[in-house]
Amino acid sequence: MDRIVYLDNAATTKLSKAARDAMLRQMANGYGNPSSTHSVGRSAKDALESARAKVAEAIGAAPGEIYFTGGGTEANNWAIQSAVETRKYKGGHIITSAIEHPAVLNALKHLEKSGRAVTRLGVDPYGRISLDELRGAIRGDTILITVMTANNEIGTRLPIAEIGKIAKERGALFHTDAVQAVGRVPVDVKELGVDLLSLSGHKFGGAKGVGALYVKKGLRLTPLLRGGGQERGARAGTENVAGIVSVAAALEDVLPRLPLDDVARKRDRLIEGLLKIPRARLTGDPVNRLPGIASFVFECAEGESILLLLDQCGVCASTGSACSSGSHDPSHVLRALGLPHEIAQGSLRLSLSEETTDEEIDYVLEKLPPIIEKLRGMSPLWDGA
Amino acid sequence: MDRIVYLDNAATTKLSKAARDAMLRQMANGYGNPSSTHSVGRSAKDALESARAKVAEAIGAAPGEIYFTGGGTEANNWAIQSAVETRKYKGGHIITSAIEHPAVLNALKHLEKSGRAVTRLGVDPYGRISLDELRGAIRGDTILITVMTANNEIGTRLPIAEIGKIAKERGALFHTDAVQAVGRVPVDVKELGVDLLSLSGHKFGGAKGVGALYVKKGLRLTPLLRGGGQERGARAGTENVAGIVSVAAALEDVLPRLPLDDVARKRDRLIEGLLKIPRARLTGDPVNRLPGIASFVFECAEGESILLLLDQCGVCASTGSACSSGSHDPSHVLRALGLPHEIAQGSLRLSLSEETTDEEIDYVLEKLPPIIEKLRGMSPLWDGA
Repeated sequence: MDRIVYLDNAATTKLSKAARDAMLRQMANGYGNPSSTHSVGRSAKDALESARAKVAEAIGAAPGEIYFTGGGTEANNWAIQSAVETRKYKGGHIITSAIEHPAVLNALKHLEKSGRAVTRLGVDPYGRISLDELRGAIRGDTILITVMTANNEIGTRLPIAEIGKIAKERGALFHTDAVQAVGRVPVDVKELGVDLLSLSGHKFGGAKGVGALYVKKGLRLTPLLRGGGQERGARAGTENVAGIVSVAAALEDVLPRLPLDDVARKRDRLIEGLLKIPRARLTGDPVNRLPGIASFVFECAEGESILLLLDQCGVCASTGSACSSGSHDPSHVLRALGLPHEIAQGSLRLSLSEETTDEEIDYVLEKLPPIIEKLRGMSPLWDGA
Repeated sequence: MDRIVYLDNAATTKLSKAARDAMLRQMANGYGNPSSTHSVGRSAKDALESARAKVAEAIGAAPGEIYFTGGGTEANNWAIQSAVETRKYKGGHIITSAIEHPAVLNALKHLEKSGRAVTRLGVDPYGRISLDELRGAIRGDTILITVMTANNEIGTRLPIAEIGKIAKERGALFHTDAVQAVGRVPVDVKELGVDLLSLSGHKFGGAKGVGALYVKKGLRLTPLLRGGGQERGARAGTENVAGIVSVAAALEDVLPRLPLDDVARKRDRLIEGLLKIPRARLTGDPVNRLPGIASFVFECAEGESILLLLDQCGVCASTGSACSSGSHDPSHVLRALGLPHEIAQGSLRLSLSEETTDEEIDYVLEKLPPIIEKLRGMSPLWDGA
């Protein structure tokens, strides 16, 4: 089996050509430590600052508002910890959604153990939060609202600009985990009104192990990693220059093509074709969703089994999130949608990139329906309808 | 000026050929997320686990004792935080040395603010700690001893195996920051008797942005980064597979040549030659030092000015540590040696790699003495002796 149809781009993407070229150039010539004052160090520093400017420009920020991290998880953990630390004089209440990534949810869980209060906003069957519910949840001691820009499992985009207005009115900091959104749809920190925003390079063609945190100018920031004076004293550790350069190059390259309409068109072909399968449902918002994510539940077909049979045809997919793979229980996201357990178990996420071809979509449309049929034929629950 | 003589390998190294080849292979074929269960993910997972086994073997550990991080700073911060968290029932006293890297010292400073007590062992003029002083510093509530394997600025190697014995006798955890030692000299966690050990890939030819923490089997570990279940639930975040693979390849490649005797021979030529300069002193232990670090102080010649003039000849060096570059004050390490301020200001670190040639050593031996002479000629303090 040589054919590979890679439809797990929400888990991670291939290095884009732009990213790869930039990384190879940097690896060949730019081996210095940006903190060194000699020529080789200055050259690394220049590459780092040029990358910072590119990432900043891509999201409507100033270069001084971008801090590079070791990934999206570190950015999310850091944003939350710093917000809680710098606003502790005001209280310890945090509002989030029930469908955040574990990098947000588990950071919050940890804070609860040390006495902070967390309100988790529920979502409707499309994965949407209610702004009225958000308004009602804000208290005098609410210091932070953290809601993702778009969900990694079901693709639903959340009303970040509206949340930004509410947060501002009520004096709470607003962080968004934009790991799935940046590099897929236009993201502008000013339009969104966010104070803190996390992104991850390997979700849009950059290297793994590189993320960034946007921190609005003037906001106080406490370090998560302490040591040397890198990143203006805010994030210690020698910068991963080659990785950072690749991420900036990937973002700069993809920017003019956002919101990836051609990817969305292929996604819609996939959705239309797969919804012909009886008792298949789309998960997430049918309209307001990421261009690359097609996500489903199939009654009486177990998600892990679907993956296994797809894998045998060379199709790489996911039940929902790579970060919780291996577990047979439906994810917290699918549970939050209110899906019955036996339906949520049959989840499948197909996530596209710009490299995905129409011919690959055809291949999945051909291979998947008989897989579902086969699994249902083996299920004692399937009534053959 | 085209010639570059790179003698700042303690700040960071070039990617080694082995590392570069491994990284390119991984970037080309291994783009999957190791948490994904499909073929592309499994291949990334295999690469990750093979890298883990190589790193483990290189330091005498088991694969399950190695946790990959985003660098040496994260490994140091994590080790210290986890030790303090898991042993808090026993107390909050920590012992360290006065010459640790900022990634250790600043992590400890932060802990002091939350009520932990830190004892910093002083060093003699060679940068050596006293084991008797260490024994005397241990208290009933001492939970952690953290002492570096070798110093980054002056190259002194510390008596880790002896400290390990003392820590074990007295029931304290023992962490060593081995960032400068791993990949330069043989390091075996069992011989050293350490519970926790930090390493960083870009110090021995691997990619920047990748480190590892060794955690002795059976030791409890609390996460520093929370989110997905990567690294057996201990360190969340998609693994930087290409970077990790490069680090393992670099380490595997260099291992048979440790302790880099040929590098030490060149280091000694450099030291012998430069000590002919009047009122030049070697810093650090003259015998028990890292093979790649030659470090000096020159009376009445300001370190930053030496660097500037060396840089004009294409020689890349450092006053001590890239992590504190830009500051004109002597580093905490040089101050701890008891050097008078006006002497410590004239510091220079030349750090070699296996790529350093004898011809490059000759070049520095030719260029540096007139630079020192020139600067002294401009100094009001120099008496011409």
